[in-house]
Amino acid sequence: MKQEFFNLEIRTKGQDLYEFTEQVIQWIRNNNFKNGILNLSIQHTSASLIVQENADPDVRADLMNYFDKLAPMNNKLYSHITEGKDDMPAHIKSALTNNQISLSVKDSELLLGTWQGIYLFEHRLEAQKRTIIHHFIGE
Amino acid sequence: MKQEFFNLEIRTKGQDLYEFTEQVIQWIRNNNFKNGILNLSIQHTSASLIVQENADPDVRADLMNYFDKLAPMNNKLYSHITEGKDDMPAHIKSALTNNQISLSVKDSELLLGTWQGIYLFEHRLEAQKRTIIHHFIGE
Amino acid sequence: MKQEFFNLEIRTKGQDLYEFTEQVIQWIRNNNFKNGILNLSIQHTSASLIVQENADPDVRADLMNYFDKLAPMNNKLYSHITEGKDDMPAHIKSALTNNQISLSVKDSELLLGTWQGIYLFEHRLEAQKRTIIHHFIGE
Repeated sequence: MKQEFFNLEIRTKGQDLYEFTEQVIQWIRNNNFKNGILNLSIQHTSASLIVQENADPDVRADLMNYFDKLAPMNNKLYSHITEGKDDMPAHIKSALTNNQISLSVKDSELLLGTWQGIYLFEHRLEAQKRTIIHHFIGE
Repeated sequence: MKQEFFNLEIRTKGQDLYEFTEQVIQWIRNNNFKNGILNLSIQHTSASLIVQENADPDVRADLMNYFDKLAPMNNKLYSHITEGKDDMPAHIKSALTNNQISLSVKDSELLLGTWQGIYLFEHRLEAQKRTIIHHFIGE
Repeated sequence: MKQEFFNLEIRTKGQDLYEFTEQVIQWIRNNNFKNGILNLSIQHTSASLIVQENADPDVRADLMNYFDKLAPMNNKLYSHITEGKDDMPAHIKSALTNNQISLSVKDSELLLGTWQGIYLFEHRLEAQKRTIIHHFIGE
């Protein structure tokens, strides 16, 4: 059994979907992983991980608009406001999506659908440095 | 360490929750898996995977109604409309649920609660062929 | 390869976020796990698992308020009402969050961010006994 760890750092510049599929595939190739599980986990609760369509960029724009409407800033119901008007919506969006994804690797290939990409979903307005742990277990 | 892969294909006929718990259990039995993790991942971004109650069918009907209200078709905010009025709501529902689930197998049994079933949650209106990758790692 | 299983039982007393990060860390220490994946899965569909901020308790209060508004009780659209007015909202909240989380363990440490805690998110009003399966695979 083989295990490897790697911390991918992504510098974000405001709310957006940042694709990092290629970095993941490159890490698998560099390490010559053949079969196993790749566990990705983001070490923050105001950004999240999602697998989404990487064909039409309109999908990402619509997703961001949708989530902004679903968890709006300046909601008077929030009591957690000291870290900025975008912080509580960020925690909510994190809860509604994922902070962790397990992907399968078979015959050295990451098993994603034709139109699937892996994204860091940044929910904060200001620039951030985000850490995504990559952990492979297999052979 | 033992690893096996299997692609389950499900033909869907419109928006619904399609249970495939029995197919998963059968695959575990046929391969004589004893202990390990079973990683399920759907290769699409307009359908998703959820574990939900399999006792009262009203729960599934209510879930579908609820998600249709939460991510309605014909929302004027969507710019991604070329693939049909149900496509952008499908991506949103996918983001709000899961495209991947890791389940535990112990003593040849899939560890699910008494009332839990595994479902493909189809978000598109037209018939589709969906692929769910089954990947076992363990012994 | 090493595998261990443990059923953590948590008695809940109404809707709340119940942190159990310390119990998870203690289980890792007691078993001397070094590197591997820890798969947590809740055996119910009216409570869920989330990783969230464990610094400001206002975040948890806001999250609960938010989800109560998003999936309200007494919604006339629900047909599944025999198990109580809080049951269908509980299934919806479960679908919107997670019933399973895979965490990475490296050099005997659980890889969580500085402010991340692991929570049982109870969606029912009455007291419940909840089972969360802990499954470690690694070395």
